[in-house]
Amino acid sequence: MIDLLALCAFNAAYAEAIDSDELERWPDFFVEDCHYRITHAENERDGLPAGIVYADSKAMLQDRIAALREANIYERQRYRHLLGIPLLQQAEGEHAKARTPFLVVRIMATGETEVFATGVYVDRFVRQDGQLLLASRVAVCDSTVTDTLMALPL
Amino acid sequence: MIDLLALCAFNAAYAEAIDSDELERWPDFFVEDCHYRITHAENERDGLPAGIVYADSKAMLQDRIAALREANIYERQRYRHLLGIPLLQQAEGEHAKARTPFLVVRIMATGETEVFATGVYVDRFVRQDGQLLLASRVAVCDSTVTDTLMALPL
Amino acid sequence: MIDLLALCAFNAAYAEAIDSDELERWPDFFVEDCHYRITHAENERDGLPAGIVYADSKAMLQDRIAALREANIYERQRYRHLLGIPLLQQAEGEHAKARTPFLVVRIMATGETEVFATGVYVDRFVRQDGQLLLASRVAVCDSTVTDTLMALPL
Repeated sequence: MIDLLALCAFNAAYAEAIDSDELERWPDFFVEDCHYRITHAENERDGLPAGIVYADSKAMLQDRIAALREANIYERQRYRHLLGIPLLQQAEGEHAKARTPFLVVRIMATGETEVFATGVYVDRFVRQDGQLLLASRVAVCDSTVTDTLMALPL
Repeated sequence: MIDLLALCAFNAAYAEAIDSDELERWPDFFVEDCHYRITHAENERDGLPAGIVYADSKAMLQDRIAALREANIYERQRYRHLLGIPLLQQAEGEHAKARTPFLVVRIMATGETEVFATGVYVDRFVRQDGQLLLASRVAVCDSTVTDTLMALPL
Repeated sequence: MIDLLALCAFNAAYAEAIDSDELERWPDFFVEDCHYRITHAENERDGLPAGIVYADSKAMLQDRIAALREANIYERQRYRHLLGIPLLQQAEGEHAKARTPFLVVRIMATGETEVFATGVYVDRFVRQDGQLLLASRVAVCDSTVTDTLMALPL
């Protein structure tokens, strides 16, 4: 069974990959036919499927990182993810559902540091060949105001 | 014995209930004759019992939520709790004492996001019929300046 | 073997000692011939050994706290550490390597609350006589802009 500690360890590795700018490793936290979405709380409440970012395969996540690198946006600032303890809602065999609060801080080149985004990951995990992976991660932001620079993975 | 992982799981569920606006579930994290208080560090250091918020029963917590709903204040903004790892100070039989740092972010309708409150939960836990509950939670805020809008449960 | 839960418990105690202003206990989280450094991401990337703060023994950490107390700077504001889940990178016998994200909030006497520093602890742990201790902690700040008031231990 997938337990709380395994989810904690997974999320620590996930956040570290993004914040240490090893973005190319980010898609490897997902299964091939994954679902990944960034949306906000009101959209989610109203059942609107469209989000700020949408992907339904690992290949799309890889494309997204390639585009980020090309646009060269990401490097201009740094991010720091602080993740809460997951709420493990369901665990059965090789599957689990969990919700994990996140807070992302953005650090500009000027040193200005601000809370960039907060919200909750709504996750479905699966264990494949002994490896824990995301079948689905929906990052539900608390703010309904979209930062057009929201380029980085949440 | 109550262990660190059990406290982590408890706090994750506690924060999720508040941040997902299921406030009516909040009193259920407490025993019937609980103690709940919001205060700040200087008051606590000086042993002043009066706090920003005070309740000494689960019924008072329920009243508080009912009042919040009537005043309709809570819905105008969102909150996000980020809780640290508990410091388990004592665990004996069905009782435990712990301290857990908290950070609460407020998200206004305009999208403005700010650190609203930080501090530490000073907690006494008890397990009743297999269920972990708060006998006492004192939320000691770091700031001595009280926000008069501090309506939400911390 | 040193496991994830042990690191979580260690960090909770470490942060609590600093944030509750029991700074004199801070050096006790380190071995005698420890390495402690505060630096920032660009320095670290370029392999520059010089940091904002540097100590290579527990005695130097104790001196630092004594100086802080004398200068009386620390008391004018409060800090709150929020630490993420450690990424346990290696654990063998009585040794472990880990990376842990941190966020430190500063609370001024006026009540103003701001994100003061974010970054990652790059740690080497050792267990001596059954007690987990830091052989080395390098606090790598995300911001390259040094606050000259960065007086407190990170």
